Amino acid sequence: MFSVTIRDHLMIAHSLSGEVFGPAQRLHGATYVVDATFRREQLDADGIVVDIGRASAELHAVLADFNYRNLDEEEAFAGRNSTTEVLAQVLADRLAERVQAGALGAVARGVSTIAVLLHESHVAWAGYERPL
Amino acid sequence: MFSVTIRDHLMIAHSLSGEVFGPAQRLHGATYVVDATFRREQLDADGIVVDIGRASAELHAVLADFNYRNLDEEEAFAGRNSTTEVLAQVLADRLAERVQAGALGAVARGVSTIAVLLHESHVAWAGYERPL
Amino acid sequence: MFSVTIRDHLMIAHSLSGEVFGPAQRLHGATYVVDATFRREQLDADGIVVDIGRASAELHAVLADFNYRNLDEEEAFAGRNSTTEVLAQVLADRLAERVQAGALGAVARGVSTIAVLLHESHVAWAGYERPL
Amino acid sequence: MFSVTIRDHLMIAHSLSGEVFGPAQRLHGATYVVDATFRREQLDADGIVVDIGRASAELHAVLADFNYRNLDEEEAFAGRNSTTEVLAQVLADRLAERVQAGALGAVARGVSTIAVLLHESHVAWAGYERPL
Amino acid sequence: MFSVTIRDHLMIAHSLSGEVFGPAQRLHGATYVVDATFRREQLDADGIVVDIGRASAELHAVLADFNYRNLDEEEAFAGRNSTTEVLAQVLADRLAERVQAGALGAVARGVSTIAVLLHESHVAWAGYERPL
Amino acid sequence: MFSVTIRDHLMIAHSLSGEVFGPAQRLHGATYVVDATFRREQLDADGIVVDIGRASAELHAVLADFNYRNLDEEEAFAGRNSTTEVLAQVLADRLAERVQAGALGAVARGVSTIAVLLHESHVAWAGYERPL
Repeated sequence: MFSVTIRDHLMIAHSLSGEVFGPAQRLHGATYVVDATFRREQLDADGIVVDIGRASAELHAVLADFNYRNLDEEEAFAGRNSTTEVLAQVLADRLAERVQAGALGAVARGVSTIAVLLHESHVAWAGYERPL
Repeated sequence: MFSVTIRDHLMIAHSLSGEVFGPAQRLHGATYVVDATFRREQLDADGIVVDIGRASAELHAVLADFNYRNLDEEEAFAGRNSTTEVLAQVLADRLAERVQAGALGAVARGVSTIAVLLHESHVAWAGYERPL
Repeated sequence: MFSVTIRDHLMIAHSLSGEVFGPAQRLHGATYVVDATFRREQLDADGIVVDIGRASAELHAVLADFNYRNLDEEEAFAGRNSTTEVLAQVLADRLAERVQAGALGAVARGVSTIAVLLHESHVAWAGYERPL
Repeated sequence: MFSVTIRDHLMIAHSLSGEVFGPAQRLHGATYVVDATFRREQLDADGIVVDIGRASAELHAVLADFNYRNLDEEEAFAGRNSTTEVLAQVLADRLAERVQAGALGAVARGVSTIAVLLHESHVAWAGYERPL
Repeated sequence: MFSVTIRDHLMIAHSLSGEVFGPAQRLHGATYVVDATFRREQLDADGIVVDIGRASAELHAVLADFNYRNLDEEEAFAGRNSTTEVLAQVLADRLAERVQAGALGAVARGVSTIAVLLHESHVAWAGYERPL
Repeated sequence: MFSVTIRDHLMIAHSLSGEVFGPAQRLHGATYVVDATFRREQLDADGIVVDIGRASAELHAVLADFNYRNLDEEEAFAGRNSTTEVLAQVLADRLAERVQAGALGAVARGVSTIAVLLHESHVAWAGYERPL
């Protein structure tokens, strides 16, 4: 199995509902360092998993919808918490939609899974992995 | 599949028996930077894998039993080497016991695997992953 | 010259005023990974720069005043931007006050400079260094 | 499942054929920070996955065949691109051959998979994992 | 003293002349992870050292002149080795020229020093610092 | 000012005397990731600060005297604590002696300072810098 990972980042504000979140129930924020991983069994004719330039551009576009925003006001999280786990799922799903829509070109047809890992500090990170 | 990882560390002395260990047969020591990962298929009602605060406290408690100690004198390693691999297994098993005993609350019932990764230097790390 | 550095982190929301900040004028947030460095010419009788346990506790206390908060509502930043640079200065000044007030004990009398470095992402960080 | 990972590095020149590579079609180069991971279900009698000293020496030997070289002139990449993905596969296959030939000793008979991850910068990495 | 650092990277081929370089006399290459640091005594009216967006764009432009190239063919290194140290100096000098030419705006007039640190692997880095 | 830094590591056991050390008074251990930095105003004729190969070999030799040992039994620390700060000084002094004795060759005559930084975990490090 082959994999390619690209890194970008995202800076947002949000608050979390539920006693379990303690002080994180207050409006605060986070930098998420975002690792997006694409996996596939066989490489394409150029010897790559995906075009890393296009993949980076698509990841950046997916992040741009949330970057420098308050997630409490974003429709994507209406009725639920924008926890690191949920955000990872939203980002992975949006990346998957773009791949399926052909944004990475024919090469990406062989991608079997997409994973998004969000580093919220030097001591905590969370992720979501899904088939394509 | 969702995951959450938390990081802590541990500083111990030990020696290793067997020619394969070369100079590490002498009494020496290590800092282990410890990454504990919890995985599950579905998030709980709060949108999380585990309560990261409680998980961090439990990990810290598990490490406290060995922190600043000579593992050669610890019962957990009687009759066997406290290699990085074995230590990872002991820590993962203890974390699993705590989760199963309810230390992380009802939320943790959905956790399917626990993994412990021990970084012993900038050029070597070892881990153990097990189902819950 | 000797130095000791300890690392902690801080998660906040804020907005920045001024065209130079572009999209960061909107309410957003950041995780700051915080490195606090203490320097001195000579070690104390125990062979240390500062008591790392007490220094970590004081740093954590200084961060707690801002952690999980919206800096736009904090008096410390009234009338000015809570940029990474300004935040580094505020944190370094508060640490310096605590050292001067004896919070780190007699050992800290020999500390000559305090520096705070704030990592806001994997590609940007800012800091402030001052004499004690 | 247990794992052990060791890190080394490799500095090479190469060019890549195909429009998808844009400016990387020109002769350029890369440092690859190389993580080689060995996994197995059960530890050996010494409590290890592999002898980390011998594994490091074998990885270093495998890298030495390409280190400080122009991959465009290397037979291993004749007729194909030396992309990060392809290079990871070549390195993993060579490591696997050495393990199977007994270079890591009897202990390595239990290794079930080998993975090679190549970090080409702070924002991109690629890997290949295979059974042994 | 305040500082701001931004990170980018550069992938080049080159060879080095002189017995001291051993196998690095052959044509090979490197990824340089580039940290550019700007220092100044006082912040500007916005509370910043430099406009991080413009500074990142200027650093990227400076790197673009060398990215994906063979430094052996670049005029900047004619008659001398493109060692990591020399490259750091060339990059710092070019950044300084741009700051002096007003590329970062009036805000940058207060910058007192520029430093460039080039990470060539996980175990080696080199840098150059100069007044502005 | 130019600088070159090389990284290696050291695994030791030790105990520390004095109430300030709390649980670290017990026999424990540490991995120290060691960064040795050489600084000088002008590069030599080859365009380097020091021969990185020889510098790495000398650093490794300096570390070998303590690696996989119990520092409580080492003469270098008789009558004093082997704190991270003291260890950094001992290592920097030994490196300096080797440079002055010509171990790095004529090129090293221009080195003006040597610094040793010891990372004892992901959240703490200490260092010592001295003129040559």
